[in-house]
Order: sequence, then structure tokens, then C-alpha cells
Amino acid sequence: MNNKTKLHMSTDEFRKAGYKAIDWIADYYEKIEDYPVMSQLSPNEIINNLPDNPPIEGKKFDDILKDMDLLMNGITHWQSPNFHAFFPCSTSGPGILGDLLSTGLAVNGMNWITSPSATELEIHMLDWLVKMLDLPEYFLSSSSGGGAIQDTASSSSLIALLAAREKTTKTNSNKAGCNGNLTVYTSSQAHSSIEKAVKIAGIGTNNLRLVKTDKNFAMDVEHLRQLIDKDIKDKLKPSFVCATVGTTSSTALDPVEKIGKICKDLNIWLHVDSAMAGPAAICPEFRFVNKGLTYANSYTFNPHKWMLTNFDCSIFYIQNKKYLLNALSIMPEYLKNKQSSTEQVTDLRDWGIPLGRRFRALKLWSVINYYGVKGIQDYIRNDMHITQKLKEWISKDDRFEIIAPTPLTLICFRLKGSNDENEKLLYNINKSGSMYLSHTKLDNKYTLRFSIGTSTSSLDHVKNSWKKIQEFATQLRIS
Amino acid sequence: MNNKTKLHMSTDEFRKAGYKAIDWIADYYEKIEDYPVMSQLSPNEIINNLPDNPPIEGKKFDDILKDMDLLMNGITHWQSPNFHAFFPCSTSGPGILGDLLSTGLAVNGMNWITSPSATELEIHMLDWLVKMLDLPEYFLSSSSGGGAIQDTASSSSLIALLAAREKTTKTNSNKAGCNGNLTVYTSSQAHSSIEKAVKIAGIGTNNLRLVKTDKNFAMDVEHLRQLIDKDIKDKLKPSFVCATVGTTSSTALDPVEKIGKICKDLNIWLHVDSAMAGPAAICPEFRFVNKGLTYANSYTFNPHKWMLTNFDCSIFYIQNKKYLLNALSIMPEYLKNKQSSTEQVTDLRDWGIPLGRRFRALKLWSVINYYGVKGIQDYIRNDMHITQKLKEWISKDDRFEIIAPTPLTLICFRLKGSNDENEKLLYNINKSGSMYLSHTKLDNKYTLRFSIGTSTSSLDHVKNSWKKIQEFATQLRIS
Repeated sequence: MNNKTKLHMSTDEFRKAGYKAIDWIADYYEKIEDYPVMSQLSPNEIINNLPDNPPIEGKKFDDILKDMDLLMNGITHWQSPNFHAFFPCSTSGPGILGDLLSTGLAVNGMNWITSPSATELEIHMLDWLVKMLDLPEYFLSSSSGGGAIQDTASSSSLIALLAAREKTTKTNSNKAGCNGNLTVYTSSQAHSSIEKAVKIAGIGTNNLRLVKTDKNFAMDVEHLRQLIDKDIKDKLKPSFVCATVGTTSSTALDPVEKIGKICKDLNIWLHVDSAMAGPAAICPEFRFVNKGLTYANSYTFNPHKWMLTNFDCSIFYIQNKKYLLNALSIMPEYLKNKQSSTEQVTDLRDWGIPLGRRFRALKLWSVINYYGVKGIQDYIRNDMHITQKLKEWISKDDRFEIIAPTPLTLICFRLKGSNDENEKLLYNINKSGSMYLSHTKLDNKYTLRFSIGTSTSSLDHVKNSWKKIQEFATQLRIS
Repeated sequence: MNNKTKLHMSTDEFRKAGYKAIDWIADYYEKIEDYPVMSQLSPNEIINNLPDNPPIEGKKFDDILKDMDLLMNGITHWQSPNFHAFFPCSTSGPGILGDLLSTGLAVNGMNWITSPSATELEIHMLDWLVKMLDLPEYFLSSSSGGGAIQDTASSSSLIALLAAREKTTKTNSNKAGCNGNLTVYTSSQAHSSIEKAVKIAGIGTNNLRLVKTDKNFAMDVEHLRQLIDKDIKDKLKPSFVCATVGTTSSTALDPVEKIGKICKDLNIWLHVDSAMAGPAAICPEFRFVNKGLTYANSYTFNPHKWMLTNFDCSIFYIQNKKYLLNALSIMPEYLKNKQSSTEQVTDLRDWGIPLGRRFRALKLWSVINYYGVKGIQDYIRNDMHITQKLKEWISKDDRFEIIAPTPLTLICFRLKGSNDENEKLLYNINKSGSMYLSHTKLDNKYTLRFSIGTSTSSLDHVKNSWKKIQEFATQLRIS
């Protein structure tokens, strides 16, 4: 924005174009239910309709906004009230607008001095979250630990693993590389990002132990202990256990407390991945998701999943920041500055993979202030209530079975029938455009996942969707 | 946004609050020169003024917007026309609004099916950029290679290293971990993210060779060759060379062509980091930045630095995508879908560290369409022109020396005097709030960096800043 040259958008033009962009978004949410939830496009349909070459002359912003019509054909509507696939990416008005302010300011909070507010608001929001979710006090910035915002839980788990790697090798793996004797443990139901992190960190999947799960798809602690004992016997170094609270497949809850005791006894790093489940702890009655967390060396959960803060916003906490800084900190001459050298300030560039950082704390600030603790509690409680109602309805239809516990807001259910039949049912549901569900396999059974949490969704939406699922099932068995 | 419950912001409320947020940004840019460029705050001043505890009851968005006044005290104004520190994070009206649309849509483009437009527009924008910058054709999506948007060049360089690591070890390091015999080469002037990537990837900094630089601070190819030969003799496996086009310290240009020939002969991965310099190639007369690029196995540059696309937006290309997918791809059951299984589509989750992905292509689309190729060329040419004028002015003042070549838009200059004197000069300049410069050390000389490229800046701004620098120098030598 610059009034001084013809080249750039003037502030006046920005104002007008900005109102139109805001209207475009408001209009989108008003008609969001008119779209098929899952995009019905074939591969390359968008690319084939885009100009082969970039424009030589510029266009007006109004015309760019018109081009959105083309792109809308290829959108899968994550914010539709009928989106129940994967986990939600819940957004909200204050989240969007908080992020807009950050985009407008366009500061890079890599070091404290490059925008003290970006660093300090982030630290403070993470302190607020410790209090809101009743997390261990050692995650507060005033302790030996602390936290920082990451893009996703994949990155959070990766840096946890790097911190553990450095701790186990006494900060030697940064220097000498990995030597193939570190071992890592997580359940067979854990998120794929753990395997990815093990690859990235140079530890190697040969050294990743997938612990068996019990009948509830939660980690089998006996098996964990056996695997660890065998590795110790084999002169390997158990260095990292990732426990999951709310697995992606079925929101199973690993027994963190029992796992934590083993880790503590054997001096193994415990990371807890609570990406989806974490925000439940804002309600005292749902604090079972925090059970055993006092054993955690690091912890992650995602406000962009279930706390109304638009993607990306994953929270990472660590018990002792020293290990993270050992793993990631760098200080080239061109980044040196007076404040950093006095160690009175935190430079968040050392708390993640990228050097540059968006001012993401602003959207958290906006969301927490707009809703207040009570508002977020209401949202979480409402989702838990909707889930229990849906569970009731499914239980009453004899054709279906629910095949995993429902501690949170995901229901894993299926037709009592073959995997093929269930796959066909899901295909028909999603192809209809009326809703979007995803699937998993549990005990090798093809299973539909109905996930609650999209902020636009209400009990009525879910009720209607359930009726439609029943109809799809009826049709499937007639045809 | 939901009209159905009291809990969330209604679309009507969003519309009104959105206009205010747009006005807030427009007003900010109109008065941006009134702020001290570098924040003048002391550590913890922001935190000490924030409420200790999160609010129980929610607030109106208007009140949240008012709170911005407090945060503004701790902002370092990257978009000020007088910001010349580090490298620019150039933004623009169409960049901000393109990103706003993405934030509003709030889709997660992790897989093709989760929003085909997000994946296909990203692929297509990266194809456009290959054409705009005259990059090797093997970076086009129709070839064996392709590209994807990353958050920062730190992540781009990391995934390049991971792809190289897997190639060198014949995809074994993902499985067996690193065994400490891979070696990596970059110049002593390369970005700190290379060292960070070497640590993260488990290769170890003992295996990182910092190649000497010549009088222009560019990589000494003879020394590179010596280091590689020695490592081969020592039974190590040279696996990755990172050449920099436009180093962070001084925008030195490594001799990519010569480096490339060595890499080709010895089958070593060549990654080219052109984070700042890359966009210059949109002007045919500045395509010296592409020299030797046909040897590159991977390449990165940042539209968020010098192409008007707000942070974060780093472009990553690879010659043969197979190596990247070998390194990063994962396919758990809950992500499987018909389209992905047919391999007709690209799932961008396998092109980076995080699983989830923002729809970042939208801001690139908005910027390229708004400016057109010509508009971006005008912007780049104007910055190159301003830099040459500033260079003239500095050269005419005998008290100063320019101590590195100025191939792009960064001038490295200093008082002919002690390091202490120059450090004091920089301190006084930045403390005044009238502009923000950063520094580096070249040949152990403390050197001021004046970096051009912020989109709000004009020749007059730079002229005024130079006059002020002269005055600061005069005052320093009087006092």
C-alpha cells in the first residue's frame, strides 16, 4: 500500500477492495451449505481452466475476486456445518480477523527485537493456555520450560524428538550425527507424523517400535515395557516415547500416567500428542485428557483443530527449554543484537524449524478475548453433547455398530457387514455432496469416522446428516 | 460465523468487524512513518501490561481492536518505508487480501481431495514462476520434478537435504538412520539454516564443511574441491552442496556453474539457495542470478522477501520428485482415498514437514494477477535503481567505504574506522527510530547493511535516510 507510486495498491483502493474481500467471506459463510461438502471435481479440472501463462499486464482486484468462482469448484468445504471428516479445522470470526491484522502488520517475529510484541504476546498467550487448560506449571514461561506456536503437530512432535535426541546423546548427535542406536516408541495407532519425524531426525524407522494396542486401541503398557527392556538388553538407547491422547483413528486415550512412570524410571523422554483432544481440558469435567501429563517432557495440542483458531496454530510446550535450545539454536553475526546477547529476552527462532515467524499469537489473543474462557467452554461442551446424541441415535439402529469408545467428539461406526459394503456406503455418502466423512481401519474393519467440531455445525445439522446416512444404508442394501 | 447460535460471531457482525479491521490496516499504512521503525521497548514491557489471566467473559471485537494500541508499542515496523534491516518481507495490498481470502475459506490442502483447488493452484503458480523466472524446465510439474510452497527457506533447504540424504544412502537412512559418513558443503557465508538442517537431519555438524570464500565473499571452488577430495579419500560420502545466490551477509553470488560441474562429475546433490535474489530473474537483464542453475537438483527462493507476497511463502523446486517423496511420504489408512491411490493427483503433504497446509497459493495468484509480470518487473527494477543511487551517494562521502560488491539490493558499508565506532553508529541510527538497519561482519569488519526492497519505500525515503546517516556519522565524530 503506497499512495506515492502508481505501481502499488493505494490505501484507498485497499480499503475498498478489502471491504469486498470481507463481503466475499461473509457471503461465502451464508451460502456455504449450498456447496457439495467434498469437492466433486476430477483431477486437473482446475489446472485445465487456468491460463497457461502468467498475465503480462496486471488486473484489477475486482477481477481477481471474480476468478474465485472458478476456484470454488475445487474447494472441499472444511467450514461447512456438514464437514465431519478427519478432525475439524475450526475457525471463527475473531480468528479470521485476528489473523488479518497479523497479515496486515506483516512483521517477522524471528527475534525479540524484530517485534517484541510478537514474541511477548506469544509467550503470554501460552501462559494463559497453561492456566486455561490446567497444564503442569513447568510449562509456564516463568519456569525452566515454556512454549511456542508451531504450524502443525507434525512440527511440534519433530522438535520434541530432536530435543530428546540431543538429551539422550548428551548434545552429541547435533555434532556427530545419529549413530543408529537410539530407539523410539509409539503405539500402532499413533499419528503418521511420528514415523515421519523419526525419518527426518535421522533416527531411522528400524529404530521405531510400534507398540501394540489394547481392545480400546490405546497403548498396551506391558508391551511397551517389553520392547524397551529388549532394546536395553540389545545395547540400544531408548530415548523417546510418544503417547497419544485422542488418536487420529479413534480418539483412543493412551494411559499416559502408566507410560510416564516407565519413562521416569528409565529416564526416557515422554512426549504427549494431544493435537485434537487438548482443548477439552478447558472444561474441568473433561480434564481426564490431562491425566498423567505431569510426567510429560513435552506436549502438543492444536487450537486450529478444536479451539476456534484458524489454521495454522499448534501449541508446543517443553518442560526444560535447555534441551530444545541445545537442539535448534543458532546465532549468526547478522542476527546478533544487544537484547539477545543479554539473555533477557527469548528469540523464538530457536523454538522451531523455520527462522522467520508470522505473528500468530494475534489470532489466539483475538479468539480468547472474544469468546472468553466461558465461550470456549460452551463450544466444547456443545460438541461433546452433540456427539453423545449422535451416539444414542446410532446405537438405536441395529444395522450399525460403534466399534471404539467415544471419549471425545469422534464416533467410529460401521454397518454390520463387509468392509466392501462400508467402503461403498462411505463412497455414496461423500459423492452425494451432502456431507463429508472419512474412514479408518480398526482391527482390520473398514470404519466410518464421524467427527464433530466444525464451528458452524449444530445439533440439527448432525441430526439431518444421521438421517441421510440411514437412508444411504437402506438404499445400499436394496440395490 | 454462524447465525444460528449466540456463541459465535454472526456473519453480519463479521461484516462490520471486518470493515473495521480493514480500516485499521489502511490507517496503519497511512501513519506508518510516524512510528519508530525499530521498537524502542524494554524487555517484558508488553507482558507487564497484559492481563495476568485470560478473561472469563468474552469481549466485543471493537474492544479487541482497541487493545491493538498497546501492542503497537512493541512492533518493529517491517513495512515502514524506512525499514532496511535484514532482508525485506515485502508485502502488498493484493498479497494481504489474497491471504485474507485463504484465511476465510480455511481449507486444509493436505491431500488433493481435501481441496483440489488448493493443490492445483499451487502447482500451477509454481509452473508460472518457472516461466516468469526462466528456470530449468525440469522444475515444471509436467516433468520428473516440480515444486511446492514452504513456510521459509529454512524448511526448503531442510527438505532438499533430506532428499539428498535419501538419494545418497539409496533410501536407507530413513530406515537405518544416519551413520555419520555423509558430508555436506556450503560456504562460510551461507545462511545459518544450512547448519540447522544438518543438525536436524541427524548428519551432524562434524560432517558439515564450511568452504572458504574469495575476496567477494563467494564460495572458493578450489577449496570446495579440496574438501570433497579429502572426504572421499577418508571414505566419507559427499552428499550435498548448498550454493548461495545472494548470501545473507552481503548478497555474494557463489559460482553456481563451476560448483555444479563438480557436483555433476561426482554425483553430489546441488541445492541452490536464492532466497532473496531469486525474484530478480523476472527481469531478463538480471538473469545472472540464474547462471548455472541447470545443474541444480533443488532450488529455493522467497516471494515473501522480494516479490510482494506476504510472509510466509518460500518456493521449493526439485529436479526429480522421486527423491523427495522417498524421504517424506507417508500414507496412513485415515488419509487414503480413491484419487490418491490412482496416482493421478499430487498430495502436497508429502512435499514438506507438516501434514496440514494453508491455501498459500491464493496470495501468489492474487499478487501475480494484480501486478502482472510487468508490474513485478517495475518493482524489481525500481529497487535495483534505488540501490545504485544509494551506492553513488555513499561512494561520494570519503568517510565511508563500501566493502562488498552490490550485485542486488543490499549495500554493505562502514565508516573507515574501528568496529566499535561502527557499532556505535548503528546503535545511534536504530535508537533514533528514524530507520532500521542491521549489520554483519565481513573479514572481521563490523559492517552496516542497508537493504532495499520494502514495497512502501521510494527513492526519496532512501535519500532522506542517507542524509540522516551522514548526520549521525558527523555527530559521532564530534562527540
